[in-house]
Amino acid sequence: MNEFTFTLHATDGAARTGRIDTPRGEIRTPAFMPVGTAATVKAMMPESVRETGADILLGNTYHLMLRPGAERIARLGGLHRFMNWDRPILTDSGGFQVMSLAELRKLDEDGVTFRSHIDGSKHRLSPETSMEIQRLLGSDIVMAFDECPALPADRDRIASSMRLSMRWAARSRAAFGDRPGHALFGIQQGGLERDLRQESAEALREIGFEGYAIGGLAVGEGQEAMFDCLDYAPGMLPEDKPRYLMGVGKPDDIVGAVKRGVDMMDCVLPSRSGRTGQAWTRRGQVNIKNARHADDPRPLDEHCTCPACRSYSRAYLHHVFRAGEMISGMLLTWHNLHYFQEIMAEMRAAISEGRFAAWEADFHATRAEGDIEPL
Amino acid sequence: MNEFTFTLHATDGAARTGRIDTPRGEIRTPAFMPVGTAATVKAMMPESVRETGADILLGNTYHLMLRPGAERIARLGGLHRFMNWDRPILTDSGGFQVMSLAELRKLDEDGVTFRSHIDGSKHRLSPETSMEIQRLLGSDIVMAFDECPALPADRDRIASSMRLSMRWAARSRAAFGDRPGHALFGIQQGGLERDLRQESAEALREIGFEGYAIGGLAVGEGQEAMFDCLDYAPGMLPEDKPRYLMGVGKPDDIVGAVKRGVDMMDCVLPSRSGRTGQAWTRRGQVNIKNARHADDPRPLDEHCTCPACRSYSRAYLHHVFRAGEMISGMLLTWHNLHYFQEIMAEMRAAISEGRFAAWEADFHATRAEGDIEPL
Repeated sequence: MNEFTFTLHATDGAARTGRIDTPRGEIRTPAFMPVGTAATVKAMMPESVRETGADILLGNTYHLMLRPGAERIARLGGLHRFMNWDRPILTDSGGFQVMSLAELRKLDEDGVTFRSHIDGSKHRLSPETSMEIQRLLGSDIVMAFDECPALPADRDRIASSMRLSMRWAARSRAAFGDRPGHALFGIQQGGLERDLRQESAEALREIGFEGYAIGGLAVGEGQEAMFDCLDYAPGMLPEDKPRYLMGVGKPDDIVGAVKRGVDMMDCVLPSRSGRTGQAWTRRGQVNIKNARHADDPRPLDEHCTCPACRSYSRAYLHHVFRAGEMISGMLLTWHNLHYFQEIMAEMRAAISEGRFAAWEADFHATRAEGDIEPL
Repeated sequence: MNEFTFTLHATDGAARTGRIDTPRGEIRTPAFMPVGTAATVKAMMPESVRETGADILLGNTYHLMLRPGAERIARLGGLHRFMNWDRPILTDSGGFQVMSLAELRKLDEDGVTFRSHIDGSKHRLSPETSMEIQRLLGSDIVMAFDECPALPADRDRIASSMRLSMRWAARSRAAFGDRPGHALFGIQQGGLERDLRQESAEALREIGFEGYAIGGLAVGEGQEAMFDCLDYAPGMLPEDKPRYLMGVGKPDDIVGAVKRGVDMMDCVLPSRSGRTGQAWTRRGQVNIKNARHADDPRPLDEHCTCPACRSYSRAYLHHVFRAGEMISGMLLTWHNLHYFQEIMAEMRAAISEGRFAAWEADFHATRAEGDIEPL
């Protein structure tokens, strides 16, 4: 299989399940992509990430271009080999993180100049350089270079930013070239303005991509506003290509996005939460540093089959968090990633079997019960 | 098997190989015990520690009594269950760490009063309380409560401290009671004074223990002085019981100790080094943060079969160390523990086959070559 293809297996309402095939393996959709910012999913061995059920990781172009550098990674055989992950990798374009992390950003029609947050060194990203960097990394799914305005922003700012991103999308497509087995995804922008989302979707369809992302959401607008947008935005994108909602999210965000027709998502939440003592379970959030867990012999979730739940008590997880031990972040990250992948697997099965609504009702009912009572 | 037994299989010069059997499994000797201070071998999952070849871990009574507390661990089913390690555990008595870590220490004939370095709370350890805490932890090998003077110390101080430790050893023996399948080890003291070592050994043999430790070494006296002492100290202890050299050491310390008749050792070095970017290989030490590794596609050690060497380049290990990623400590700790256990396995085989001297010569010759040349 040397092609990048997307096959839709079933739909249930707007929710979809299917499979992306790539030369590096299949991606079952809906898919959650753990984030491996600096060539590692923090606190995890890549074998363990795979064990949680992840088919694909996300890498951050901005971080990797600054350290250790894209040319260096290319010389070392590419990102897959460098980080010991032989399955698909999606890289973002760097645009969003330049805007949120870099210093002294200067935007013009051609691209953006900025200084590294690590050492202050000067860099430039444009559609052409972003495509080149993602090629050097060896990314399987390359994201078009775009600009994402911080919200709230006025309509004119959102419109002009979206139109710039569409011009950059066309330049990204041209610069990407012909790379069988690799995919370029365009990114819809337009904030919460339906007509701008439509204009953006039409511009992207005109250019033509192997997949389509929904950008500019999960940037502080709140779940209700995001869901309102997701009620129409996915339907503007081609039905026969994967739809990727960038940077989402909490478990209930993910479920709501899948319900509305999203096929792929990514978020640092499970790994970041894991390092700060926050666990996500079927019953909602558990703050393991809370003193109520100090003597609790029960696992985080008795139904969970991850190593943290199989072999350790809440009391242990509490202790190692309080003692600042690395195994705390290791176990909680593993649990969180496992839980996120479990939701995805359950949703894929529910959509296949036409029972997504019932699954979703159960998901919300279990969360509403809240965490188990203290002993 | 409900007994604690030691079987000597072979000797080669003063070096010995054998097996300790316990209800929780066998300990192949010479044995290196990774240190799991706060109920975790830092940066490692216990399954991974086992994969490196460790038969037994060391737990620190001082740390565990302060946090999370010995009674709590007992209520939670004991240290093995708490930390998910079902094989043997040896606990120190707390005496050494009280002297090196605690604040406001006050020593008297009965024991020592001190304040916790964590929260300043007041605690007391005596032979009786140390035995009780180690029983609550569920330790398989319990260490007698002793006092270890900081070196340099004058002969009178060393002698009086050793005699106090011998009185405490007798009280430890009495307090330990009858616990089939569990062992109590006495600790020889006497600094670098041969006659005091002899006096201490005789006192311990008089009391009678399941094993004998050599204490008061690896406290700054240097390798030559330590080896001088090890030329005679192990021979003063019963031949048919395991001999444990506490807190040792670097690979060449370990080899020199085994050569002189030591059966067990422990040290934080492999795990502590792993978290600070130091790797131990057959060719000596590698400082992974050095810029020479930034573009090096080779593994730490091409002959090593640990995950860090099997799947990652020096360039990757350099990158994740510089980026402050947890996987840096995880991989280097794994490598170091693997290497230490590999030395032990090789020494056991060499002693069994009567070729320890040849093995030792090869060990030193390979180290003398130094690290591979930069590319």
